[in-house]
Amino acid sequence: MTFQIHIGANVRKSAYFDATVADGVRSFSVYNHMYIPGHFGDPEGEYDRLLNGVAQWDVAAQRQVELAGPDAVALAQLLTPRDLSSLTVGQGRYVPVCDHEGMVINDPVLLKLGKDRVWLSVADSDLHLWAAAIGAERGFDVSVREPDVSPMAIQGPKAMDVAAALFGDHVRDMRPFAFVETALDDIPLVLARSGWSKQGGFELYLMDGAKGNALWQRVRKAGEPWNIGPGAPNDSERIESGLISYGADMRRQVVPANPFEMGMGKMVSLDSHDFIGRSALRRIADAGIARRRVGFFVEGSPVTGLEAPVALRRGATDVGIATDIAWSGRLDASIGLGLVEVGIGDDDTGLTVALPEGSRPVRLAPLPFL
Amino acid sequence: MTFQIHIGANVRKSAYFDATVADGVRSFSVYNHMYIPGHFGDPEGEYDRLLNGVAQWDVAAQRQVELAGPDAVALAQLLTPRDLSSLTVGQGRYVPVCDHEGMVINDPVLLKLGKDRVWLSVADSDLHLWAAAIGAERGFDVSVREPDVSPMAIQGPKAMDVAAALFGDHVRDMRPFAFVETALDDIPLVLARSGWSKQGGFELYLMDGAKGNALWQRVRKAGEPWNIGPGAPNDSERIESGLISYGADMRRQVVPANPFEMGMGKMVSLDSHDFIGRSALRRIADAGIARRRVGFFVEGSPVTGLEAPVALRRGATDVGIATDIAWSGRLDASIGLGLVEVGIGDDDTGLTVALPEGSRPVRLAPLPFL
Repeated sequence: MTFQIHIGANVRKSAYFDATVADGVRSFSVYNHMYIPGHFGDPEGEYDRLLNGVAQWDVAAQRQVELAGPDAVALAQLLTPRDLSSLTVGQGRYVPVCDHEGMVINDPVLLKLGKDRVWLSVADSDLHLWAAAIGAERGFDVSVREPDVSPMAIQGPKAMDVAAALFGDHVRDMRPFAFVETALDDIPLVLARSGWSKQGGFELYLMDGAKGNALWQRVRKAGEPWNIGPGAPNDSERIESGLISYGADMRRQVVPANPFEMGMGKMVSLDSHDFIGRSALRRIADAGIARRRVGFFVEGSPVTGLEAPVALRRGATDVGIATDIAWSGRLDASIGLGLVEVGIGDDDTGLTVALPEGSRPVRLAPLPFL
Repeated sequence: MTFQIHIGANVRKSAYFDATVADGVRSFSVYNHMYIPGHFGDPEGEYDRLLNGVAQWDVAAQRQVELAGPDAVALAQLLTPRDLSSLTVGQGRYVPVCDHEGMVINDPVLLKLGKDRVWLSVADSDLHLWAAAIGAERGFDVSVREPDVSPMAIQGPKAMDVAAALFGDHVRDMRPFAFVETALDDIPLVLARSGWSKQGGFELYLMDGAKGNALWQRVRKAGEPWNIGPGAPNDSERIESGLISYGADMRRQVVPANPFEMGMGKMVSLDSHDFIGRSALRRIADAGIARRRVGFFVEGSPVTGLEAPVALRRGATDVGIATDIAWSGRLDASIGLGLVEVGIGDDDTGLTVALPEGSRPVRLAPLPFL
C-alpha cells in the first residue's frame, strides 16, 4: 500500500530537497518538521552501496539546537546525564537527554564548537523547546535557537576516500566524533567523523542553506570514482548495527524508556554533576531496571517492516515490546529490536512477536547483530 | 511532482488510520509525529462538502497534552498570556503559548476538564516537552503527559444535524468551544463544539484508541442522510477564513512571530496574571510591533500552493513574508497569508510576492477573506 506525501507549507524543505529530487528521490518521511528522503527507488542497491561503497544522504532534518553564550556548556551539562567535563572543543559526543522523570526525550550528538557554543544534533523531537525552557527557568545566560545548519552524510567504507578527496588526507586521522570548521571554496561547513550507520563516514554540516545544491553536486562529483550515489538512513543496517532510533525504539509519549533500559547505562554519570533527571535515575538505578534492550530474529517468511510497536510474548503473557523489524540481507533473516522484562534470558524459548498478520516465533539475539 | 510517503516505525499511526485507508485516503502529511490524511482523491468535492455539507476528518494528530494534579490550572495559566480566570469546567479556549522571548511556540485549544485536569489540544510542536519542563522547574504538583485521546472532526453546515443525530438535540445549544464528557455506547469521548474551520462543527475526542474504527463507522453511518464523506483540514478554507496554521504561518525555528504580530493581541493580558514571556511581551507592546498579519490576492494565473515562505516586496525591497497560498474557489482567486511591515497599508500599490517561478503582483486584503 503506497500513499502520496502532501508537500505543503507546514513542513520544511531541506537545503538539499531540490538536489534529491533531481537525483530521483521516490519517498519522503518527515523528521523534525522537515521532509527527509526515504529511498531513491532501489532499496537493495542503496543497502549495498552503504555496505560496500559510499552513499550520500540528505540528513538536514537532523536539526541543530545551538546553545550560545557564557552558560552554553553549563546548560549542555545540565541537560545530559553523560559527563562532559573531559570534552574538548572540536570533539562531539553521543548523549542521552532525559526529562525530570529520567525518561529519554532525545539522543543527540553534542558538538562542542567553543567554550560558549554547543550544538545538539537532534533526533526527532523539539529539543529546542526543552533546552530553551530549562535555560530560561534556571536564569542561564544562553540563547537557544536553531541555526541555518544542514547536515549531509557520506557513509560507507569508501566515505573516507571521498572525504580525503574533498578535504585532504588529514581527514584520515580524525577520531570518531571529531570535527573541524572548514569550507569548500565559499561553502562554509563543519566536517565531522560521524553518521547514523556503523559503516563509517562523515557528516558535512552545511552552514548556509542557500548552498545546499552546490554542496550536494560538489560531493557527488568528488565521489564519482567510488560510485557514490544517493541513499538515506537504512532501517536494515541500523537494526543490524543496533543503533537507537528515537521515535521508533522509544518516544516519551508512546514508548517511554530510561537510559538504563536502552543500554545507555554507561553514559549515566550519577555522581559527577547535576543534571535533569538525576534523582529519578538514581531511584531507578537503586531499584534495578525492569526491562532491557534486545535484538531478536523473527522466524518464518521475511518481515520487511513494522509500522507500530507490538507485543513480545511468552505464551499468552506480554513480556516486552517490539519496536522495529527489517529484513537483513547480510543475515538472510528478519531481525528486530525491542525491550523485554529483565527476567527473560537470551536463551528463553516460547517467545513470539504479535505481528498484525499473526504471531510469529522469535529468538533473542545480543546486540549488535553485526 | 508527487512522492510516496514512507510508512515506518518512527511516525505514529492515528487511531483512525485503517478507517481512512478503507475510505480511500490518497495522501498523508505528518503532524506531531503522526500521519494525518491530506486528501481522498477529490479535492474539489472535499472543499464543497466542507462548505455545503459535512466532512469527517481524522485529526488525531492534534494530540492532547494533559496537565493533571493540584497545580494543573496554575500551570496552564502560566503557559499562556490569555487570562483564564473566568474559564469554567466544560469550556475550551483558544490560547497562544509563548516562550520567554514572547515568540509563539504553539496555539492550542485549552479544555478545562476539571479543577485539576486540563488538556491542551496542540498544533504541530512538542508542547509536552515545554510544559513538562516548566512544570518541573517551577516545582508544580502536576503531571504532564500525552493521554490516549484521538480527535475526529465533523465540519460543515450539516455537522450540527449529524451531531444531533448521534448525541441528541441538546448539542444544538452548546456554545462555541463548550464540551461534555460523554459516550456512544461503550465508546468514551469528549464532544466539543469546535474545529479547525469556520464552517461550524464538532470535535469528538475519542478516549480509547482501540475504538477508532468503531467510532469512525458510527459517525459515518449517522451522517449518511447528509452525505457525510471523508476529508481533511482544508488549505483553501483555512486561508479564506484567516485561521492560523502554526508551522506554516509561524514557527519558532523558521518564522518566529509574537502574538501581537499574529493578530492575537486581544488574547494577551499583560496585567492580569504572571505568564511565561510577559516581560518580553510588555517590552514589545511598549515599543510597538514591527509587522502585522495580512491576507493578499495574487494576480495572474492560479497559484495552488506554497511550499516554503517567500518574500513580499515593494519594488526591490523586502517588506514582509508570504507564508501560505491557495486557490479559493469561492473567490475565484489565488489568496495568501503573511506578515508585512506595519508601514505598509492595505491600499499600497507596487507589492509583489517572490514566487519560485517568478514575481507576481499582489494586493493586500483584510482578514478574514470570507
